[in-house]
Amino acid sequence: MSERAAGGKGTMSRFSLNQWTTKRWSVAEAVDGCVRHGVEAIGLWRQNVAEQGLDETVKLVADAGLRVSSLCRGGFLTSQDALDDNRRAIDEAAALNAACLVMVVGGLPGVAPGEPLGAFDRDLAGARERVAEALAVLAPYAGARGVRLALEPLHPVYCADRAVLSTLGQALDLAEPYPAEQVGVVVDTFHIWWDPQVLAQIARAGDRIASYQVCDFLHPLPADVLLGRGVMGDGVIDFAPLTRAVAEAGYTGDIEVEIFNADVWAADPDEVLTRVRTRFGELIEV
Amino acid sequence: MSERAAGGKGTMSRFSLNQWTTKRWSVAEAVDGCVRHGVEAIGLWRQNVAEQGLDETVKLVADAGLRVSSLCRGGFLTSQDALDDNRRAIDEAAALNAACLVMVVGGLPGVAPGEPLGAFDRDLAGARERVAEALAVLAPYAGARGVRLALEPLHPVYCADRAVLSTLGQALDLAEPYPAEQVGVVVDTFHIWWDPQVLAQIARAGDRIASYQVCDFLHPLPADVLLGRGVMGDGVIDFAPLTRAVAEAGYTGDIEVEIFNADVWAADPDEVLTRVRTRFGELIEV
Repeated sequence: MSERAAGGKGTMSRFSLNQWTTKRWSVAEAVDGCVRHGVEAIGLWRQNVAEQGLDETVKLVADAGLRVSSLCRGGFLTSQDALDDNRRAIDEAAALNAACLVMVVGGLPGVAPGEPLGAFDRDLAGARERVAEALAVLAPYAGARGVRLALEPLHPVYCADRAVLSTLGQALDLAEPYPAEQVGVVVDTFHIWWDPQVLAQIARAGDRIASYQVCDFLHPLPADVLLGRGVMGDGVIDFAPLTRAVAEAGYTGDIEVEIFNADVWAADPDEVLTRVRTRFGELIEV
Repeated sequence: MSERAAGGKGTMSRFSLNQWTTKRWSVAEAVDGCVRHGVEAIGLWRQNVAEQGLDETVKLVADAGLRVSSLCRGGFLTSQDALDDNRRAIDEAAALNAACLVMVVGGLPGVAPGEPLGAFDRDLAGARERVAEALAVLAPYAGARGVRLALEPLHPVYCADRAVLSTLGQALDLAEPYPAEQVGVVVDTFHIWWDPQVLAQIARAGDRIASYQVCDFLHPLPADVLLGRGVMGDGVIDFAPLTRAVAEAGYTGDIEVEIFNADVWAADPDEVLTRVRTRFGELIEV
C-alpha cells in the first residue's frame, strides 16, 4: 500500500475509479484524473493496459501513488484454450500489484455477447464443470505469483453469453477448495442486488471478498443490457444493506465504482468523476 | 377432468396452449384452435376472460372438453389494495376450475414495467415481506374455494418491476407454511434455467409443482426483455434436464407453452400452434 493511501484518512479514501467509468480516458489520462481529483485507487482493464504498455502502466501508477484495486479481467474459462490467456492475465496482475484479478468466467461455449446464435453447446452444467476444472489449474498458478483471483458472479441475464457463474453462493462453492488469499469473490451490486440469499452469502463470504464494486441497476434497462449500469442513485438498488453487510463481513478494501452506460461515456470524464464521487459520498461511504 | 382429457392417451396429451402464445386469438378463437388442433388443455388470461365474459368462457371450455391448466394471473401483492383484485382472481379461477392461479407477485412498490422511475420504494426486503403478508391473507381464501395459488418466480431481470420473487427456492420458502394443495409453485423454464440450484429445488418442490411452463430464452434478448421468450429450440435452454427433474419430482399435469414474442405474435396463430406442438414433441414430451 502506498504511503499516500496509508495516510489517507479523509472522506472517501476507499473510493476507487474503475477506468471504464471514464471509458474515453486512456490509462495515463485516468491516472492523471485520479491524481487531480484526489482519488487513491484505480481499477484497470487489460486491453487499456496493453494499449498503454504494461511497464509504462506499472510506472504510472507507482509514480502517482495509486493502489490498483483490481485488474479486469481474466476468465471466459468455458472456451477452449482459455488457460494461456489467463496465465498472462495473472502475470499482468502480479506486475501491477493489483489487489485481485477479476474473473468473468464465460457463458455457454459458442454463445457470443450481442451476436446471433450459431453453433453452441446448451450444456449449462457441463460449462459450469469446465469452470471448476480451469480454476483448479489457474488457482495454484495465481497463488505462486501472489495474485488473488476474484470470481465474479454476473447477473443471471448474462448467463448464456458472459458468465455461467450467477450467484454469490455459487461463487463461494467454487472458491471453497482454495485458500481465501488465492481465490476470492467480487461483490458487485449490479449483479447481486436481487438475490434473496445475498445478505447471508455476503456474511458467508467473509474474508473471501476480494472486491466490492458499486453501480446502480437502471430501470427500464436500455436495449443493450450490458449498458444498464447507472450512477448510484439513478436506479433501483438500495445500497445501504449491501454496504453494511460487506463491512460486517470484514471487508476494508477499496470500493470500486464501475459504470457501463452510454450517457456516462458520452459525458466529460472529469464531470463524471466529480458526479460519481459525490454520489459515493451520499450513498456508499457515508 | 373432462372425459376427453381422461381418455387422451396419444402423443402430447399433456400439451397445453397458454393463450398468449397465440395472442391475437380471443378466448373463443383459442378454444376453437385447441379443438381443431387436438389440444386438450388451455392456459387463460384474466383480461381475455373478462373480454369474453367469465360465464361464457366457463361454457366454452366445458363444451370443448378442455382442461384449464392455469389462469394468469393474480399477484402484484407489493402494491397497495392488491387484495380485493386477488380475491376476484381466485373467484374466477374457481369458476373456471383452473388447475391453479398463477401469482406474479410484483416488483418494488412504485416501479412500473417499461416506465421511467418516478417515486418508488427501494426497500426490497420490505417488498418481499409484504408478499408474505398478502399470501397469509389470500392462501386461506383460495383454499376455501378449492383454488391453488401458484407462486411464480420470475427471472431476476424482472425483480424491480414485476416480481421480487426471483428463485424457486425463495418461492418454496414462501409456500412452506401452507398445504401443498393451497400454495404451489410454477416452474417456468425461461425464468429458472440459469439457477445453479434449480435441479435441487425442483426435487424439493415435489408435489408443490402446480404448473410446468416451457419456452426458450432468446439470445440476444430483444430490446423489450419481456418479449425474449422463444419457441423451444430457438434459444439457449437445455430442456431435457429440467423436464426430467420435473417428472422425477412427481409432476404429471399439463405442460403449458407460453411464448411472448413479437415475431410469434405477428405470425398466423394456426401456424404458431402447429410449430410449437412440433417442437414440443421434439424437445419436451419426447
